[in-house]
Amino acid sequence: MSQSGAPKGSNFDSYLKTQMPALGMDLGGTKLSAALVAGNKPISELVSVPTPTGPENIINAILALIKQFQSETVLTGVGIATAGIVDCTTGSIIGSTPNIDGWTGTALKQIIENKTMLPVHVDNDGNASTYGDALALGLHDKACVVGVTIGTGIGAGLIVYGRPYRGATWAAGEVGHLRLSLDNKRLCTCGLYDCWEEYGAGRGLIKTTRELLQGHSANQTELARNPAELTTREISAAATAGDIIASRAIEIWHEHLSAGLVNIAQILNPDVFILSGGMSQVIDLDLLTDLVKDRCLPPIGNALEFHKSPLGHFAGIVGAAMVVLDGIMV
Amino acid sequence: MSQSGAPKGSNFDSYLKTQMPALGMDLGGTKLSAALVAGNKPISELVSVPTPTGPENIINAILALIKQFQSETVLTGVGIATAGIVDCTTGSIIGSTPNIDGWTGTALKQIIENKTMLPVHVDNDGNASTYGDALALGLHDKACVVGVTIGTGIGAGLIVYGRPYRGATWAAGEVGHLRLSLDNKRLCTCGLYDCWEEYGAGRGLIKTTRELLQGHSANQTELARNPAELTTREISAAATAGDIIASRAIEIWHEHLSAGLVNIAQILNPDVFILSGGMSQVIDLDLLTDLVKDRCLPPIGNALEFHKSPLGHFAGIVGAAMVVLDGIMV
Repeated sequence: MSQSGAPKGSNFDSYLKTQMPALGMDLGGTKLSAALVAGNKPISELVSVPTPTGPENIINAILALIKQFQSETVLTGVGIATAGIVDCTTGSIIGSTPNIDGWTGTALKQIIENKTMLPVHVDNDGNASTYGDALALGLHDKACVVGVTIGTGIGAGLIVYGRPYRGATWAAGEVGHLRLSLDNKRLCTCGLYDCWEEYGAGRGLIKTTRELLQGHSANQTELARNPAELTTREISAAATAGDIIASRAIEIWHEHLSAGLVNIAQILNPDVFILSGGMSQVIDLDLLTDLVKDRCLPPIGNALEFHKSPLGHFAGIVGAAMVVLDGIMV
Repeated sequence: MSQSGAPKGSNFDSYLKTQMPALGMDLGGTKLSAALVAGNKPISELVSVPTPTGPENIINAILALIKQFQSETVLTGVGIATAGIVDCTTGSIIGSTPNIDGWTGTALKQIIENKTMLPVHVDNDGNASTYGDALALGLHDKACVVGVTIGTGIGAGLIVYGRPYRGATWAAGEVGHLRLSLDNKRLCTCGLYDCWEEYGAGRGLIKTTRELLQGHSANQTELARNPAELTTREISAAATAGDIIASRAIEIWHEHLSAGLVNIAQILNPDVFILSGGMSQVIDLDLLTDLVKDRCLPPIGNALEFHKSPLGHFAGIVGAAMVVLDGIMV
């Protein structure tokens, strides 16, 4: 009997989990993306729309995407990864990012559940993408997986003994604002001095390059032509083309990147770092691994593994959906 | 029936837990201490002996103390907090501290269990004392409790969702070796530069004071009489007596202490820091709290609580014994 159609009784949960997908969604400052997810991976194309302005328009866009997928697929639920701080019990946004205006205070889970009658989980994008990548790498049952996203800023998600770790007030993983100097050198956009992201994020690489360019002319390096408008893409391209200043800046940037990773490692003794975000493409994984391992105490450094994100843009989508499918929503 | 004598069946576990004590022990570089523990607190006097030289003599001292307590009390088990890195599954010392010669490789749990026929749990002293203090403060079920011991060096224990968090290779909490500068200024005893304990531990305060004393004579401050022999006790006493250099050194030391705590907080978003160790007596808790909260992102800083260790020298003893009584040995 159990071989024809959906199995009944105690097998129904595992049937739902293995057969019926959840919809994973990822809301960032520039776009809202969605895909069907089952078995730790996306099982549909990625659908993206530009992030609309204002909470009401964002909610309507989320609902429209859910309806679009529902017209063809029965959904187990919806997992939404979003920028900002999320209370995962209520599914409300309790702290926002400047990239999504007016997002704080949105009771996202409640609104979407009321409109769709589906179970909805809302999570911080760093937590969700680390959970997704950890599942994809088969590392989710380790003691500690740390996902670090390196772009314009730096953020992190922590998986501890198989579950996203969220902290006392849902704000764990604010690693971009680790303090890396006692001297007040570089002022961060957050108003504090010497945050990790002023050194290790994309804008850190740009600042380091500008410092190295002082006293150099455009005859010596193309980068000196317009230091105020430098981009990480130009610096990276110049380094690849053999520019000495650019190469040195990228070397120092690796050192700066390693300092924050070392601090995370000395505290948490994690099994693995998973690196993602636009700037992760510039990382020389061998160099970074050596720098971090050399600066950690041996039992911590020796055990560390490094990976680049296997799921890339899909990581938050897969992670948020899998939290629903794995039934670990709170 | 259940009112006379030991209850039977399903109540027996809770009878053992509430009525029968475990022996808690704490092994450090200078002394080995023990006390009976039940209901999250010590229920006997503290018995201490000097730490003998060599693993064999230490083991004999541990066995002698157990026998001494067993002659008067039926023990549920023995919990041993020790300096060094401990594999809590096997109860073996897998990484030692320079303070206990030859301790690495000692299969402590196995040896003591075989000799006593009691269940034995061996744990790192930082983990054990944080668990003990968290229980004593009624904070053990919080998302994250961080115990920080500040003495000659700095160490930490982490309690995550009610259990000691141990990391991938049992080495979590090596916070003394957080990197607090990108410039290689102060060389640490571990061979690395700018570890937190070079600034925030007792020897950090001494180094900071020596730096401030440069160019000052004994006419200006008593501390300048013999900077090479300075002790934290002298500096602290001089500050209390109004010495300007000493007061400034202690102010800077609080700033340095805050930097490491900030980094732990930004990563873990803990509920509470519990501060212990000899140097914790020098801490102005209001000043330190302000410094840390000001340097954390608001959702993290606002939620933070600070306590000094309620159990003091008993913390490791109570914590190690309570891990046995709470049945969370691995």
